[in-house]
Amino acid sequence: MSSPFDTRMMARALQLARRGRFRAAPNPHVGCVLVRDGAVIGEGTTQPAGGNHAEIEALQQAGDARGATAYVTLEPCSHQGKTGPCADALVAAGVSRVVAAMEDPNPQVAGQGLAKLQAAGVVVESGLLAAEAEQVTPGFVARMRRGHGRVRAKLAMSFDGRTAMASGESQWITGPAARQDVQRLRAASCAIVTGVGTVLADDCSLTVRREQLDQHSLAAQAGERQPLRVVLDSRLQTPAGANILSAAAPTLICHSAGATVPAHLQAVDRAFLPDAAQGLDLAALMPLLSTRQCNEILVESGPRLAGAMLQAGLLDELIVYMAPLLMGSSANPLLAFPLDSMGQAVPLAVKDVRQVGVDWRFTVVPQQVVLK
Amino acid sequence: MSSPFDTRMMARALQLARRGRFRAAPNPHVGCVLVRDGAVIGEGTTQPAGGNHAEIEALQQAGDARGATAYVTLEPCSHQGKTGPCADALVAAGVSRVVAAMEDPNPQVAGQGLAKLQAAGVVVESGLLAAEAEQVTPGFVARMRRGHGRVRAKLAMSFDGRTAMASGESQWITGPAARQDVQRLRAASCAIVTGVGTVLADDCSLTVRREQLDQHSLAAQAGERQPLRVVLDSRLQTPAGANILSAAAPTLICHSAGATVPAHLQAVDRAFLPDAAQGLDLAALMPLLSTRQCNEILVESGPRLAGAMLQAGLLDELIVYMAPLLMGSSANPLLAFPLDSMGQAVPLAVKDVRQVGVDWRFTVVPQQVVLK
Repeated sequence: MSSPFDTRMMARALQLARRGRFRAAPNPHVGCVLVRDGAVIGEGTTQPAGGNHAEIEALQQAGDARGATAYVTLEPCSHQGKTGPCADALVAAGVSRVVAAMEDPNPQVAGQGLAKLQAAGVVVESGLLAAEAEQVTPGFVARMRRGHGRVRAKLAMSFDGRTAMASGESQWITGPAARQDVQRLRAASCAIVTGVGTVLADDCSLTVRREQLDQHSLAAQAGERQPLRVVLDSRLQTPAGANILSAAAPTLICHSAGATVPAHLQAVDRAFLPDAAQGLDLAALMPLLSTRQCNEILVESGPRLAGAMLQAGLLDELIVYMAPLLMGSSANPLLAFPLDSMGQAVPLAVKDVRQVGVDWRFTVVPQQVVLK
Repeated sequence: MSSPFDTRMMARALQLARRGRFRAAPNPHVGCVLVRDGAVIGEGTTQPAGGNHAEIEALQQAGDARGATAYVTLEPCSHQGKTGPCADALVAAGVSRVVAAMEDPNPQVAGQGLAKLQAAGVVVESGLLAAEAEQVTPGFVARMRRGHGRVRAKLAMSFDGRTAMASGESQWITGPAARQDVQRLRAASCAIVTGVGTVLADDCSLTVRREQLDQHSLAAQAGERQPLRVVLDSRLQTPAGANILSAAAPTLICHSAGATVPAHLQAVDRAFLPDAAQGLDLAALMPLLSTRQCNEILVESGPRLAGAMLQAGLLDELIVYMAPLLMGSSANPLLAFPLDSMGQAVPLAVKDVRQVGVDWRFTVVPQQVVLK
């Protein structure tokens, strides 16, 4: 049975877990607190891939962990990966009790870490603050449970729901604080997906610009990791010299099997996607990104791709920055997503509303999309 | 010189003033606090037209006000209206000091009430919490200063900035709390302006439905006053039996001088407005509403009239209820207001954002419109 003290310690472990959100991918970011006689003797957060898991960090900080209780936000691993199994390390260190917030959502692992601990005589509990723990690593949980990571679209619109003038003119809709916030979003993402239309119109880079981040933030201190840039470009129209092809970050171009590969794209990472009625089959992109272990997928595109992703039921969340201005009724829509009747309107659950500089940020969840 | 105690008393007077906002029009709603020896001896709020002004209410409550200080949110009147001049009443009651938040903005009155008091030997001060006092009665202040009242447009839109499906279907975009909030807005308005298009499409009533208000609210307790319903109907197309013509509230139909008056509109209050390039000259509506002493003017219309009012620079404020749903890119815009370039985009000052039931209410001020 868990006590209020246990809850407090798990809440601390969740805090530690969140600190890893810009660094741990493709691993889940986990937190661990080691406690003996009511005192914290070690704390840890998952290090970048190849580095220590949270439990090992906490054990190293504690030195002697005999008889301690370990609070971990995810079931300790039981298999040999790039690092040794944490369950074994906890047993070897003489930890006497392990409280896990949730089991590993990977169906091939679930429960084995806890079973291994129990078999070794460790007292094992699971499920304390489980809902909170799932919210800390939603992308990893989604990838393990349904086969692909969390998909969020970032959009910027005017107060009247417009993203660009009919002419395409759109620069600087939102203010500097919103743009900095987008850098944080990118830094927490494994992949950034866009369409070739946006590449051709904006010559976007879609990199994390760490110099634009608050230098004291975790995002800025997370190192030089850059998300995978994914361009949906069925006919391989990405031009030579495009910023999206720069060496600053990895790039994957998804195209139609029938497309001819121009010379300047021969050396670029490429993948086929099946054709759909309009453009590429977006649903097929998801397993492809899972082979790249992408937990957090950010769509940064024009209204056409974002609208198609919504229509395909692929968007788990929309993050919309609303700038305080009116762009008028001939400007481009938020999402290219034509509907005929109110019955087709998509209800949204509003998760968060906040002011970001002069703009307002809405985090909304389309209600016809259910995480499976 | 005013003291912190004076400020506290004026803040109380401003509270009392706000209580009159559903009742006092066309008079400004004013608050008055009478204080002697540091104790409040009387308080008052402007009563409905023909009833007591705030000062008289406070004097009656005090009984004996000799030697008291009167805190009033607006300069006491000096002229005979439906009631006698308040300045005379304060002198007669032996009040020794009057602190006014602001002078009467009516250029024909400004300063005369204070001068009369001063001439009678009363100590007079003015300007304490003046900015706050102007905000309490913005419609009256605007009508006195620039010749017409405050004009606000109430709009309801989806998250993606749409007001109705292309087919016209739009019922129930917002939830019950937002609709109740609109009833409060109406109750605080002197006139509600709409276009004949909305009359034809929705057969709207545009009355205050007091049964929909919180029965403990000031709005519900304000009595049966109904705002003037104003229909912009250049060709007099309002049909016989339309709800807007009901006896529940007064109605004014504004039309083109050349329009033929059908039999069912012969007995309806009507006024000419000059023709403009499209429809009627909206700017000419404002002096017309001033002859009706309208302080607070609420536009409740479709995107065409609201867009034209904005384009004409006539909207002081937009009150927009945003419902959490996506209506898609073929639905109707918030405002029919086509622009060609970002340079024409209208910046908005965001005055207030709040959740109203399941919806979000934004109060925004178009920045090209300046109160003159």
